[in-house]
Amino acid sequence: MGRLSDSYDPGPQVAQCGAINLGTKDLVASLHFFSDLLGMEIVERAGDTAYLRGNQELTHHSLVLTQQAESIVNSYSFRVKRPQDVELFAEELERQEIEAVEVPSGAESGRGTAVRFLLPGGGHPFELYYDIEKPLAVPELRSTLPSNSSKRRGLGVRRIDHFNIQTSRETINQAESWVRETLGFNRREYALHRDDTTVLASWMSVTPQVHDLAIVANTFGKTGQLHHVAFNLENLHDVLTAADILRDYDVTFDLGPGKHGIGQAMYLYVIDPGSGHRVEIYAGGYLIFDPDWEAIKWEREQFPDGLTWYGDPFVYKGDARSLETTPSAGLR
Amino acid sequence: MGRLSDSYDPGPQVAQCGAINLGTKDLVASLHFFSDLLGMEIVERAGDTAYLRGNQELTHHSLVLTQQAESIVNSYSFRVKRPQDVELFAEELERQEIEAVEVPSGAESGRGTAVRFLLPGGGHPFELYYDIEKPLAVPELRSTLPSNSSKRRGLGVRRIDHFNIQTSRETINQAESWVRETLGFNRREYALHRDDTTVLASWMSVTPQVHDLAIVANTFGKTGQLHHVAFNLENLHDVLTAADILRDYDVTFDLGPGKHGIGQAMYLYVIDPGSGHRVEIYAGGYLIFDPDWEAIKWEREQFPDGLTWYGDPFVYKGDARSLETTPSAGLR
Amino acid sequence: MGRLSDSYDPGPQVAQCGAINLGTKDLVASLHFFSDLLGMEIVERAGDTAYLRGNQELTHHSLVLTQQAESIVNSYSFRVKRPQDVELFAEELERQEIEAVEVPSGAESGRGTAVRFLLPGGGHPFELYYDIEKPLAVPELRSTLPSNSSKRRGLGVRRIDHFNIQTSRETINQAESWVRETLGFNRREYALHRDDTTVLASWMSVTPQVHDLAIVANTFGKTGQLHHVAFNLENLHDVLTAADILRDYDVTFDLGPGKHGIGQAMYLYVIDPGSGHRVEIYAGGYLIFDPDWEAIKWEREQFPDGLTWYGDPFVYKGDARSLETTPSAGLR
Amino acid sequence: MGRLSDSYDPGPQVAQCGAINLGTKDLVASLHFFSDLLGMEIVERAGDTAYLRGNQELTHHSLVLTQQAESIVNSYSFRVKRPQDVELFAEELERQEIEAVEVPSGAESGRGTAVRFLLPGGGHPFELYYDIEKPLAVPELRSTLPSNSSKRRGLGVRRIDHFNIQTSRETINQAESWVRETLGFNRREYALHRDDTTVLASWMSVTPQVHDLAIVANTFGKTGQLHHVAFNLENLHDVLTAADILRDYDVTFDLGPGKHGIGQAMYLYVIDPGSGHRVEIYAGGYLIFDPDWEAIKWEREQFPDGLTWYGDPFVYKGDARSLETTPSAGLR
Repeated sequence: MGRLSDSYDPGPQVAQCGAINLGTKDLVASLHFFSDLLGMEIVERAGDTAYLRGNQELTHHSLVLTQQAESIVNSYSFRVKRPQDVELFAEELERQEIEAVEVPSGAESGRGTAVRFLLPGGGHPFELYYDIEKPLAVPELRSTLPSNSSKRRGLGVRRIDHFNIQTSRETINQAESWVRETLGFNRREYALHRDDTTVLASWMSVTPQVHDLAIVANTFGKTGQLHHVAFNLENLHDVLTAADILRDYDVTFDLGPGKHGIGQAMYLYVIDPGSGHRVEIYAGGYLIFDPDWEAIKWEREQFPDGLTWYGDPFVYKGDARSLETTPSAGLR
Repeated sequence: MGRLSDSYDPGPQVAQCGAINLGTKDLVASLHFFSDLLGMEIVERAGDTAYLRGNQELTHHSLVLTQQAESIVNSYSFRVKRPQDVELFAEELERQEIEAVEVPSGAESGRGTAVRFLLPGGGHPFELYYDIEKPLAVPELRSTLPSNSSKRRGLGVRRIDHFNIQTSRETINQAESWVRETLGFNRREYALHRDDTTVLASWMSVTPQVHDLAIVANTFGKTGQLHHVAFNLENLHDVLTAADILRDYDVTFDLGPGKHGIGQAMYLYVIDPGSGHRVEIYAGGYLIFDPDWEAIKWEREQFPDGLTWYGDPFVYKGDARSLETTPSAGLR
Repeated sequence: MGRLSDSYDPGPQVAQCGAINLGTKDLVASLHFFSDLLGMEIVERAGDTAYLRGNQELTHHSLVLTQQAESIVNSYSFRVKRPQDVELFAEELERQEIEAVEVPSGAESGRGTAVRFLLPGGGHPFELYYDIEKPLAVPELRSTLPSNSSKRRGLGVRRIDHFNIQTSRETINQAESWVRETLGFNRREYALHRDDTTVLASWMSVTPQVHDLAIVANTFGKTGQLHHVAFNLENLHDVLTAADILRDYDVTFDLGPGKHGIGQAMYLYVIDPGSGHRVEIYAGGYLIFDPDWEAIKWEREQFPDGLTWYGDPFVYKGDARSLETTPSAGLR
Repeated sequence: MGRLSDSYDPGPQVAQCGAINLGTKDLVASLHFFSDLLGMEIVERAGDTAYLRGNQELTHHSLVLTQQAESIVNSYSFRVKRPQDVELFAEELERQEIEAVEVPSGAESGRGTAVRFLLPGGGHPFELYYDIEKPLAVPELRSTLPSNSSKRRGLGVRRIDHFNIQTSRETINQAESWVRETLGFNRREYALHRDDTTVLASWMSVTPQVHDLAIVANTFGKTGQLHHVAFNLENLHDVLTAADILRDYDVTFDLGPGKHGIGQAMYLYVIDPGSGHRVEIYAGGYLIFDPDWEAIKWEREQFPDGLTWYGDPFVYKGDARSLETTPSAGLR
C-alpha cells in the first residue's frame, strides 16, 4: 500500500512557515535583539544581510535581516512539502493568472529556487521554496543534542512560529480564501465582522498548530501589512523570563505578557529596536490532530476573551499602539 | 487547484494516536488515578467500563478503562484521516493477508466502526476508526474556552500523547517496517542493536510530534507488550508539580522526572495503582515540520544521553523495574 | 555567650503575619473558593466559622471565615516571637493609652490569649497572640513530608503571605510610623505623596520578605480598609496556572497576572465570590538579608514600573475597580 | 517602646551567609562558569582575584575567586547584624580561648574589618564582618529595578544561598553545637547516626530559610571539608533550564536535578570546571516564620525521601562521586 499511495499525487502542499526577510534600518541593533537577547544563531553574515535560526531549526535560516533604507518586509517564505511543489505551485499561479517571478537559488543564502508572488487580496510578497541547506553550527555553539542546531542561549528561541499579516477589509475575504484554497491552509479559529460575512481575523495552519498564518483586517484600511512575526519558546514560564529581561534591556513592549484564548498560547509583543517590526515571543497553545476539526467561530461578546484570556489586555479603542503595522515590499 | 487536488487520492492515512483501552483489576483505583489525580474527565460510565479524555480533547475519549480479571491492553486505537480510510485500510490488510475483524459502531461508546488486527511482528491489537462523537462536558465541568472540552483540573492532562510498545528482537524489524510502510509513520529517531541491523528502538510519527508510536525491543523476548502510554501536560514545570503530588499520594514511581535527549521531552513514569500499567506524564519536546527530516540515529555511546539528558536516569542493568511491561489482548 | 545573651531582653517583637478573620455573607461560596480552588485545608469547622491553612503551615490556621451579615474584616492577627510578648505588648499599649481588650484563649479555635486593639491612625482591628496549636491533618490529607501539614491540592496555596491595608491620607503617617516604631516593622520600599512627606504607600516587614504588611493611602479617604490579603504560591508559573483555572471557574479578576517592580513578585488579584474581599495570589519576589537595608524610595515617574513591571497594568485613572476596598470591624 | 528596646542588648548575632572565597587553579574557567553561564556580575577584578555577586545582591560580593595552586576554600564569611557585633564576637572567641586573627579592612575588596577563626570541631576558616560597600554596577549592566544590582543574565543567579560543610564524625557534634550556641543558628531539620546521638547531618539557619549552613558527617573522616556552596535561582523551572544549558556546555553533573524532601528545594549539583568545587543550583523550598519551630528529625527509613523527594537520586552506596569534598585553608 505504501507503494500504492506513491502513485497518487496529492498536488502541491505547503509544509511550514519557513522564514521572514525583514528590512532593518539598523542591522547592528536588530542583531543585538535577535541574537544576543533572543538567542538566535547567526548562521551567516554576508554584507548587509544576516541569516539567523532558532536552536531547534536545522535548516539554514528562518530569519533574514537586511540593512536597507526602509523597514519593510522583503518576503514571507513558506517551505513546500516536495521538491516538485515549487514548480507545481508556479504552474497553478500561472493558471490563475497571478504574476510571479522566479527567485534564483542562492538569492537567499543556502536556499534553492523559489517562486515569488503577491498574495491576492493582500499584496504581501510570498515566496515558496523547497531546497534549503542544513549547515552545522560552528563547534563552540553546536549542541550535543542532534535535534538542536545550537546550544540554548539568551531567551531560548527555538524556531519561527507564525506570521500575522493584515490587509484591508475590502479584500480580506479574497486573501483568506486564497490561502485556504490554493495554499491548502485550514481555518482553525476565526471571527467575522458585524456583517457576519467579512473576515475580521482568521487563524489558519497547514500543521497541527492553531496557526502558521493569521490574516486580520487592518484598522486603517492598509494592505500588505505585517502585524507581527512570532518566535517560539518552549514553556509559558519562558515568556515571563523573556518579559523580565527585555524590560530591563529597555526593549519597547507593545503588549503582554498574557495568554490568548484563541490558540491558548502565551504572548509577549515587543518591537525590534533596529527595524521597528513587531515580534511576538510565543509559547504553549494546543495542537490540532482531529482530521474533522471544525473552525471555532468567536462571537463579538466572547472575542475579548479570545484576544486575552488573562494578562495584559488588548485595548480595543483608544490605544493605537497595538494597531500599528509595517508594510511589505512589492513583487520585485 | 484546491479542486484539482481533490481528485487525487493519497491513499488511507493515520491521523493520530486515538485511544487506549486498558484492562484494570480495580476500576475504582484507576479512576481515582486518572480522573481525581491526573484530571481527566469521565465522559461516560457504562457498567464495568469508563470513558475518559483530557481537557483539550473534544472527541469522546482517549482512554477506556475496563474492569476485568487481567490487566492487559485491550486495544491500541488510531484515528484515520478520512471516513473512507477505515475501509481502505481493511482492504489493504486483506491484500496483505492479515486477519482482521470489524469492531461494530458503539462497541466503544461514541465511536463508529473500526477494523481490528494484530500488528504484524508485534501482536498488539490495533484498531483503526474514523467516526467519533464530540460530546459537550456536563455544564459544571465545561470550559469557557471552546477549544477545551472541560476546565483544567488535577494535574492538567490535556490529551493522550503516544504509545510505547514492545516486541521481541526477532520480529521487531518486521513490526517497525510495517508501521512505517503500511500505516505511513515516519521514523524520527532510532537506535540499532549491536548488529547495526536490528532495531533496538524506533520513535515514529504521523504528526509533527517526534513520536506518536515507539517500538522497542523487549529485554525478555516477550511480544505484544506495552511499555507505557503517555499523556500530555503543557509545560516542563507541570511535570514537576505532578511528581510532587503523585509522590505524596503514594503513587509508585517507575522513573523520573527527567528529560529525554530523544525527543527532548520531560518524562515521569508512574504506575496506575488500579491496573499496574505504566503511564508516562509527558511535556515539551520539539516538533518536526521539515518535510525532509532525516531520522536521527543514536549510537551506543550517546544512547544514555538520549534516554536521559538530565534527571532520574534509566538504569540499564541491574534494576529490572523500568523493564517491566504489560501484555495485550488477542484479536478477538 | 548563648547563655549571656539570654539575660538581655530585646523587648516584645512580632514574628510574622499570622491570620486574617474574614466575614463572609456566603460561607459555602468562600469555602469553595479557598478550599476547593485555592487548595487550603479546612482544619476545623465550628458552626458558622471555618479555620483554614495552607499546606506549608503547621499551625492551626491562617484564615478564619465567619458567616455574618457584613463582609468586613473581623481581625488582622500577628504572631509574636515569645510567649511573654503578648503581655509585654499589652503593657506598651497601656503606656501609650491605646485601648485594648483581651481576646480569651479559644475565641479563635486553637489559639491562646490575644490582645486586640485598633491600629492608631488606621482603625484596623489588630490582634497579637503567641500560642497556637499545631494539629495534624486528617490521615487522608496528611503529607508524607513532615514540613507540610497537608498534601498539595488545588492551586497549591502554601501559606498566608501579607496584608495590604488602607487608611486616609490624613492619618497614614501616624499609622505607618506606629507600625514601625511600636511593632518593629522595617520599611523596605515606599512612595510619598506629592508633598514629599505624606506616605502614599509603604511596604514593611519583620521577616526577610519585602512586606508582611503594606499600608496605602485610600483614594476615597476611608480608614480601616482592606485592600487585599495575599496567599503564597511557590513559583511564578503557579500564578499563571491559577489564572487559567480561576478564569475558567468564573472567579472575578481584579488585576493580573503581572509582576510588581516593588518586591518583584508575581501578582493576581481576584475577588472571593463569597465575601467580596480581594485576595492576591502571590509568588516569588526577593528576600532581604542585609541588616543595613535602606528603604527604596519610588519617585513618581518610576512608580508605574514599581506597580507593574510587566503584565496586566494598574490603571491609575479611570478604572475604579482596583481601588475598591472592604471595611473592618471595630474594637469589640 | 521602640526607644525602650534600644537599651537592651541582644548580644552579637549573625545576619546571613555572606560570601565564600574559593581558590581555583584556573580563574578563567571559573569566571566563565560563574559569570558567563551562571550570570553573576564580576564587580571587581584585582590581579589574581575576582569579586562576584548575584543580580539581587547589592553588596560588593558574595563570591571571591582566587587563582592559586590549590583548589581549597580560603574562607566562609558571615555577615553580622550590627557594626559592634564583629568586636563582640571577637571578645566571645577570646573568652572561649579560640584563636582568632583580625582580617584588615580591604583584605577582601569592599569589605571592612573581619575576625577570622577556625570552626571548633570543624576546622573551617570562618570570617565575621559587618561593613561592606554597595557599589552600583557599570551602567550597561545596571538594572532598572532598584532592588536588583544588575540585569538578569545567564542562568539568573540571584544570590548566594547556603554552605554545606563537612567534618569527621568524632567532632561533628562539637561543631554543630558551637554553631548553634555561639553563632545563634537554629536547627531546622536533622538526622542522627545509628547511635541516636551523633549528628549525621544538620540544617541550620539564622534566617527563615531552612538552612544558611548545613553540617554533615564526612564519610571518609575528613575535617574542614566543603561539600558545596549553593546559589539561588527564583523558580523550580529555572533549575531545569540551568540543567539543560549546563549539560550542553559540558559542565560535569554531580547530581540532579531533583527535589529534596529536606527543605523542599530543587537541587542541581555541578562542578566548577575551574576549581573543582561543587556548586549547587538551588531554588524553592519553604520558609520558617514559626518562632516555636521544632527541628524535624529524619529517621533512617525516611531519610532517602529527605535526600530525594523526586528526581536524580542520591546513591548511598557504590557511587563515591557525590561524596567527594574539597578542603579548606588554615587560620592564616
